[in-house]
Order: sequence, then C-alpha cells, then structure tokens
Amino acid sequence: MDYVLHYAPDNASLAVRLTLEELGLPYRTRLVDRAGHAQASDAYRALNPAAKIPTLETPDGPIFETAAILLWLADRHGAMAPAITAPARAGLLKWLFFTSNTVHAGLRMTFYPNRYAGDGAEAQSALRRHVQSTLMSEWALLDAALATRQGPYFGGGAPNILDCYAAPLLRWSALYPAGQTDWFRLADLPALARMAQLFEQRPSAQAAIKAEGLGPHPFTAPEPPTPPEGSAL
Amino acid sequence: MDYVLHYAPDNASLAVRLTLEELGLPYRTRLVDRAGHAQASDAYRALNPAAKIPTLETPDGPIFETAAILLWLADRHGAMAPAITAPARAGLLKWLFFTSNTVHAGLRMTFYPNRYAGDGAEAQSALRRHVQSTLMSEWALLDAALATRQGPYFGGGAPNILDCYAAPLLRWSALYPAGQTDWFRLADLPALARMAQLFEQRPSAQAAIKAEGLGPHPFTAPEPPTPPEGSAL
Repeated sequence: MDYVLHYAPDNASLAVRLTLEELGLPYRTRLVDRAGHAQASDAYRALNPAAKIPTLETPDGPIFETAAILLWLADRHGAMAPAITAPARAGLLKWLFFTSNTVHAGLRMTFYPNRYAGDGAEAQSALRRHVQSTLMSEWALLDAALATRQGPYFGGGAPNILDCYAAPLLRWSALYPAGQTDWFRLADLPALARMAQLFEQRPSAQAAIKAEGLGPHPFTAPEPPTPPEGSAL
Repeated sequence: MDYVLHYAPDNASLAVRLTLEELGLPYRTRLVDRAGHAQASDAYRALNPAAKIPTLETPDGPIFETAAILLWLADRHGAMAPAITAPARAGLLKWLFFTSNTVHAGLRMTFYPNRYAGDGAEAQSALRRHVQSTLMSEWALLDAALATRQGPYFGGGAPNILDCYAAPLLRWSALYPAGQTDWFRLADLPALARMAQLFEQRPSAQAAIKAEGLGPHPFTAPEPPTPPEGSAL
C-alpha cells in the first residue's frame, strides 16, 4: 500500500511531506479539515487518539507524532538518518528529541497559549512572552549543532530528517502568531539560515510549495499560506 | 569504555538508570550537584549545551535528552525496543515521542512554571492548574495503549524503554510539586498501575531504590527521596 498522509496545509504534516518527497516515496494525502475540527472527530481519533496532525497510515498501522514518523520513515527506508550502528546516530537522536519537546513544543505554546494557560488573557500573554524569550536561545543551540556538520545540512550535503523538521519550524517562528513574531531573527542563526535558503530550492520543497501554497521562499521569507485546499488554522 | 551517567537522584536520569540496569550493562554514575546548579556549569554544558539532566557519555560522544538516550541504548544493544523492521516499531516510536513532548514536557511545566510563564505568581498558577487539568487525559491515552499489549508491560512480558520512561513519570505525577498532586489518580490508570506495581519489584528498580533513596514503592506509593548523595531539586 502507498503511505497515506493525513495533513493540513502548513501544519506539522509539512515535515512529513518533505521527508516523503526527499525519499522519493509514493504517497497519497488526505486533507484534515481544520476549519471543521476534523482532527477531533471519532474517525480521526481512531487513527490518532492524541487528535493532532499529522498521522501517517503505513502497512504497520497508523503512526502519529511528527518526529516519530520522520524517524520511522528514515529507518525503514535506510536513508535520511544515520544507521543504528553509525557514530552519528547519537547526535541525530538527541537533537531530534530536543527539537520535538523543546522547540516544537515551545512554538505550540506560543500558537495556542490557551491550551496551556487556560482562558485568562493575561496568563496567555505571560506564557507567550516568556516562551518566546527563551526560544531564540534554543534555536541557537540547534544552529551551533548544525554549524559543526560537514556541509550545510544536518544530513551533510543533503537534508536528513532533522532538516525536514527544522525548516518548517523556522517558517512558523517567522510567521505565527501573525504580528507577534518580533522575537525571531533568522539572520542571527546563520547555519540554519543557510540550510533554509538551500532547502527551499530543492524539488521536495517546490512540491510542498505547490501542494500547500507556501509561496516562493517558504523557509527564509515566509508569507501566510494560500493553499489550494483546506486551511492552516 | 563504560557508560557514564550524569545523574541527580529522582531526576530524569532515573529512566536511564532503569534501562541500563534492565540491559545489564556496566556503567558508572557521576552526581550532578543540583543544589549548586552544576547542570548550568561550563563543564556540564560542554557535554550537554541544553544544561539538563541526564547526559550519558558513550564511545560515540555524549548523548542527552532522556528519550534519545533510551532509544539509542535499546537500538545499540538490540533489546528493549522493537527492531527497525518489526511491525511494533511504529507503536514504540509514537508513544515514546508523545511521552517525551507531552507527558514529560507537561509535568515539567507543573514543576517549573516560572520557566514557561515568567515570574508572575498568577500566571504560574494558571499554567500549573491548566496543564494538570489535561495531564490525566494524556496519561489515559498511554494507559489505553498499554492495555492493548500482550502482557503487563509496553514490552510485553518484561519492560521496554517506554516502561522505564513511564514509571518515573508516574512517580513524579504523584509526588511533585509537594502538596499539589491531587489531580493525579493512579487507580484510574489500571494498566499503568499494574505495570508500575510489577516493575518496582524487579532487580532494576531495587538497584535504583538503593542508589537514589526512592523508598519501598517508588512508582505506586512514592515518598520524597532520601538519597545517599545529592538532591532531587
């Protein structure tokens, strides 16, 4: 069976799409209608009880959690992550989990502060401001890690799954929530900026731009998406 | 070289200790003096720039991020996680990342709300209350996943790395912050309660109890630790 990617435009499914494209794997997509809260439907929860986007249907059943999907795809297809026996495996795993539970999780707090701080506007604002105040130093750790690599990508001369994960997170840092992204300065992350600039020219990124309406510079100079179907929020 | 686990008692290093014990691997420990903020020292940051506990020194360099260490150990030693080719690999990865970025990350917010909400007491309180209000439903997803397994553990008849991760998190849910754990009810998580009850009788848990002063029922009826060296906070 082909993989089936349950996605919404400019959601975390973008990292999976980039990985599938880089791996050259056949896949189909199924839009999750965020405007209609389809991710909370019984049908979607049957695939992913955590009710988050993305989910990937595979011959081994549905997988969710963005980074889990990326790592599973890389390992299963023997590309885009160091092998278990490779000395570089440790570096991939530590930064993959850091990206998942610190950078991605932090950005989610700034996008949806109500889900963490409740309904109070002041508590939401305090959470967003404080988390944003720490995110640049967390991005700087990833930038320093990337700067030690041989080549412009975490994968060296070509993207690995960490590049596919980081590029969309750079995009969202610059874009969401609209009008409240002054904290983020891509120019202060030179290794990541270079990676993003190269990555957005690759065929994988061009395919994602077309499928999700991401504009000409989705990672270095992002604009709000204009997707052919569905909505980001 | 033996592995060197940089640890503090009853910190996330406990999940790594349990895994090393279950795997029967030789390792040494090095106490991180939390009372003296040693995790923020230059020497520690040279191993782990994210300045968090644990770090594991390996022949492939230092690894940090609790779940990254667990997965690396399991894969490198061919035990305590399904192989890359196994159908159960997808299930392990999705729940491992969920545990890392949702359950563990959520608990951290309730332990250290100032790191997310800043200095305001009301914002901290709102964050802690709201995150605690969602954590039982997140635990319930893990409980439901465990209930589908053949055997009492995520690993079936014996613990895998997800059991080694979940057991300390169950402990902390019941214990921290002191006096503010009414939200947590282990009895409402029957599969996890059964796992925890069996796990704490194993030699691996007994070794951890002795090394870190965790008391006779560290996962099902935890008491504040009385470690022979160092401090949990």
